[in-house]
Amino acid sequence: MPSLSDNSADMDRLLRALSGTGTRPAVDYSLFQRVSRLLRQWDFSARCVLFQGGGQLELLDILDPRGESRALGVAVDLGTTRIVMRLVDLESRETLSETVMDNPQISLGSDILTRIHHAATDEGAEELKTLVCRGVDDGLETLCLQAGVSVQEVYIVAISGNTAMTHLFMGLPAEHIIREPYIPVTNTPGTHRASLFLEHTNPEGRVFFFPNIGSYFGGDLISGILFSGIHRQKETSLLVDVGTNAEVVLGNRDWLVGCAGAAGPALEGGVSSMGMTAGDGVIDRVRRDGDDFTVGTIGHLPPLGVCGSGFIDLAAVLFLTGMIDAKGKLVESACKGRYTMEHGLPALIVVPEETSGTGGAITVSQASLDSLIRSKAAMYTILETIVMKVGVGFGDLEKIHVAGTFGAYIDPESAISIGMIPDLDRNRYEKIGNSSLEGATLMLYGDRYMDEADAIRDRITYVELNVDQDFMIRFSGAKFIPHTDPDLFPTVTKK
Amino acid sequence: MPSLSDNSADMDRLLRALSGTGTRPAVDYSLFQRVSRLLRQWDFSARCVLFQGGGQLELLDILDPRGESRALGVAVDLGTTRIVMRLVDLESRETLSETVMDNPQISLGSDILTRIHHAATDEGAEELKTLVCRGVDDGLETLCLQAGVSVQEVYIVAISGNTAMTHLFMGLPAEHIIREPYIPVTNTPGTHRASLFLEHTNPEGRVFFFPNIGSYFGGDLISGILFSGIHRQKETSLLVDVGTNAEVVLGNRDWLVGCAGAAGPALEGGVSSMGMTAGDGVIDRVRRDGDDFTVGTIGHLPPLGVCGSGFIDLAAVLFLTGMIDAKGKLVESACKGRYTMEHGLPALIVVPEETSGTGGAITVSQASLDSLIRSKAAMYTILETIVMKVGVGFGDLEKIHVAGTFGAYIDPESAISIGMIPDLDRNRYEKIGNSSLEGATLMLYGDRYMDEADAIRDRITYVELNVDQDFMIRFSGAKFIPHTDPDLFPTVTKK
Repeated sequence: MPSLSDNSADMDRLLRALSGTGTRPAVDYSLFQRVSRLLRQWDFSARCVLFQGGGQLELLDILDPRGESRALGVAVDLGTTRIVMRLVDLESRETLSETVMDNPQISLGSDILTRIHHAATDEGAEELKTLVCRGVDDGLETLCLQAGVSVQEVYIVAISGNTAMTHLFMGLPAEHIIREPYIPVTNTPGTHRASLFLEHTNPEGRVFFFPNIGSYFGGDLISGILFSGIHRQKETSLLVDVGTNAEVVLGNRDWLVGCAGAAGPALEGGVSSMGMTAGDGVIDRVRRDGDDFTVGTIGHLPPLGVCGSGFIDLAAVLFLTGMIDAKGKLVESACKGRYTMEHGLPALIVVPEETSGTGGAITVSQASLDSLIRSKAAMYTILETIVMKVGVGFGDLEKIHVAGTFGAYIDPESAISIGMIPDLDRNRYEKIGNSSLEGATLMLYGDRYMDEADAIRDRITYVELNVDQDFMIRFSGAKFIPHTDPDLFPTVTKK
Repeated sequence: MPSLSDNSADMDRLLRALSGTGTRPAVDYSLFQRVSRLLRQWDFSARCVLFQGGGQLELLDILDPRGESRALGVAVDLGTTRIVMRLVDLESRETLSETVMDNPQISLGSDILTRIHHAATDEGAEELKTLVCRGVDDGLETLCLQAGVSVQEVYIVAISGNTAMTHLFMGLPAEHIIREPYIPVTNTPGTHRASLFLEHTNPEGRVFFFPNIGSYFGGDLISGILFSGIHRQKETSLLVDVGTNAEVVLGNRDWLVGCAGAAGPALEGGVSSMGMTAGDGVIDRVRRDGDDFTVGTIGHLPPLGVCGSGFIDLAAVLFLTGMIDAKGKLVESACKGRYTMEHGLPALIVVPEETSGTGGAITVSQASLDSLIRSKAAMYTILETIVMKVGVGFGDLEKIHVAGTFGAYIDPESAISIGMIPDLDRNRYEKIGNSSLEGATLMLYGDRYMDEADAIRDRITYVELNVDQDFMIRFSGAKFIPHTDPDLFPTVTKK
C-alpha cells in the first residue's frame, strides 16, 4: 500500500511486484490510464496478464483478483481450404470451444496461386486480408458465444499457417514467393497487435504468427513438429502432413531435416473432379468383399462421392482384387459390370445409379486413378528421398507421426497396400490429428514454446525436392503398385 | 541479393544485415507491407531508422540509400507555462528550427493545481491531453515548415516535463499526485507510439517521456542533470532550476541528492500581480544610480512592467540604496518621491506615469516585495538545506549550474546581493540555459542517454523538504537581506 515512506508510483509499484518475472515488462498506454483507479478499487491487489513475445515482456492488462474474468487464448489453424479455431483458458489450459469454417478467401480463388496473383493487384492483398480477418473475427465471436465468455477476455491469438496463407492473412504482397528464387516477405512475422487484424479480442490483445522456413515450408509444419515432439526425442522419427503439399520432417533432438513437395490434388478434396471434402454421405471406407467390394459412407447415408481417404481404400481394394494392374490401369475383365466408358476413356462404377444418393452412378475415371498413382508415388518418393538424404532406413524410424485430415481418416493398411507409405509395423504409425492446431494451442501457453518454435526453425535443414534430379528416378519406380521393387512391401506381396 | 542458394525472406535478409547492432530488432507491421517493394526498388540496399527504447530495439523505417529523406527528432521542454520545441537531424545532430508557445492547457487553468483538479472531472484528463497534444502537434508542423522538411521525417519526440505536466500530456488521472501520500500514476512513462498523442510525425514515430522521481521532482530536472553532466564529474557541483518550483540537485559521479520546494510565484511571471513574463518592453535590468536607480527594458522600449529577473535586480538596488530595510520593508524617507500608497498599503513607483509605456505609473507593492523576500528566503534555504544534508559547504562546490529562464536572465550579482544565492566567486556560477530542452535533445541521440537518464533516476536520493522541521528555522534566518548572519555574505556586507 502507498504511504509517505513508500510513495512510489502506482505503475512502478505494480511492476516492482512483478519483478520476480525477471525483466521489467513494457506497459501499454491504455493501462496507464486505468491502473490508478483499478488498484485503488481492488485494494492494491491485481492479477496480471503478461505476454512474452519477440524478446519483450509486456503487461497487457490487470484483472480483479477476486473477479471471474479470465485470460483466454485462441489457436488458429489457417488452412488454404479450412480454418480451424480453438478457444482455451490460458490458466487452466482447458479447451472451451472449437469451430471450423471454410477459408473465406476461397471466394477469390480456391487455390493458393490464384490468391497470390490476386494479392499482386491493386488493393488485392488488402482485400484478401479483409476477407480472412473477418472470417477469423466471426470465428472468435462464435467461439466466445459458445463458451459464454466475453471477447474482451481473449488476449492472444496464435496463428499457424503455411507461408503463403500467413502472408495473405497479414495483407502482404506474396508474389515473390512463387517466382524464382522464391523469396517471402518474411520468415519471422512475429507478434503484432491483434487490433491490426481483428476486432473481437481485448483491445490490448496480441496476435502471434508461427515462423516459416521458406516459400514452401510454412509455420503450420513448425507448429506440427512442436506438437509431435520429434525434436525432443533421442530416437529418430518422421512427421508427415499431407495437405495441398506433402510436408515431411525427419529428425530427433540432435537434427531435423524437412522437405515439402507437391503430393497432388487427389489427396485433398475439392480440386480433383471426383474427390470430395469429407462430409455426410461421402464414401470414406471401401472394404474388399471377395472379388468385389462394398463402400461405407460418413453418417451411413446414401453415397454422394468419394473423399481422399476413401479413394486410397478403393485403390487398395482394386489392386488386391486385380481390378487395376500394377500400373493402376483398370482391367476390364476383372472389373466386370463395374467397367464403363466415359468421354471415350475407361472408368469404374463405384456405386451404381440405383443405390447412389446423387441420382446418377458414382464413378472413378482412369484419369483420376492415374492422378492418384502419381500422388502416391510422389508421397512415397518424398519419404524415401528424405530418409536416404540423411542415410537412415525406414526400419530405423521409431515413429511415423501422421498429421492432418489425411492422417486422421486414412487407413494405413490401405496406404501401405498401394505403396504410398512404407511397409512398416502398423503400430509405428501414430495419428496425431490436426498438429498445426495443436501446436498453435501449445504456443498460447508460454514463451518456452515460442523459443522452441524459433529453435526448430533455426535447426531445420530444408531440402528443396524440386531441384533434385534423383527424385525423378525414384518417382518412376514408385509409380507401380506397390512398387517396382516388391521386396520393399513384403506384407503386400504376401496378400 | 536473393538467389536460389540464398533465398532467405526479404525482411530476414534486412535484419541479418542489421545483426551488427546486437539484438534482433522488432519490426512494425506497416514495414512488412512495404519492405519487398522498396528493397527491389533500391537494389537491396537501404538506410534503416532504428529506435532503442524500453529494452527493445525497433526498426521503424527504411529509407532510400541514395535519397535525401532524413531521420529527424524533436525535443520538447513541456513547461507549465511555456512549451519550447527544437527540431534536429538525428544523423548530423544539427538544429534545424526552434519554436516557443504558451502551454494551451492554460485556458483550463494557469497553475498546475487547477489543471489537476480539472483532470479529475469527467473527460477532464482527455480534454487537457487534447489541448496540449494539439499545441505540440501545431508546433511540430511549424518546426517542419520552418526547416523545409516533411513531418514524415520526424521519428522521435522526446518530452521533458515535470511529473504533473507529463501526466496531463498523457491524459492520465493525476489527482493522487497532490494528495498525501502523493502517488503518481507512473514514474517511468517510457516510450509509446507517437500516433497516440500526435499526428504530425511519421506514422511509426515514437514518443519518449523522461522518467520522474516522484510527485514534485520531474523528468525536466532529470533532463537538466543529464545535460549539466554533474552526474559524470568527480567534483561535487550543484544544479538549480527555478520555475514554479525551485529544483535543486547536488552531487557528483558517486552520489546525487535532489530536492524540490516552492520558491514562490515572484520568480515566474504571470502569477504575481506585477511580475511579467519576459517580453518586449519588460523591465529586465535595474541599475543603481547614486541614491536612485535607472531601468532597462527588453528591446529598449517604453517600460510595461517588471519580470522576475528585473524584480531581483530592483530588490538588490533598493537594499543597497537603503530604500528597503533588511526585512524588505520600504523606507519612506529613502524612497522620497518614489514612495506612494496603493489600496492603503505602501508601494514604490518604479517608473512614473510620464515615462511608462502603459499610460500609468509602474509600481511595486510592499506585498510583492514581501512575496519576493519569501521566495528568495525559500531559494536560499533550499540550497542551504541540501548542502547541509550531505555535509558539504557552499565553498566545496566546483560549479553551480543555473538553469531555466531564471538562470538565463538573472544577474548573479543581484541575486547574491539580496541573499538569494550564496556569496561565492561569481565564476563558479554557470548559466546553462534551458537544460530541460537540452537534455531532451541529447535523448534523441541514442539509448546511451536513455540508460543514463534511468541511472540518474535510480541514483538520486530525494529529500522531501516539505516534511523537514529544521527547514522552517533556517527559512526564518534567510528572510532578512541578505541574511541574519552577515558573515555568510561578505561581499554584500562590503558594499
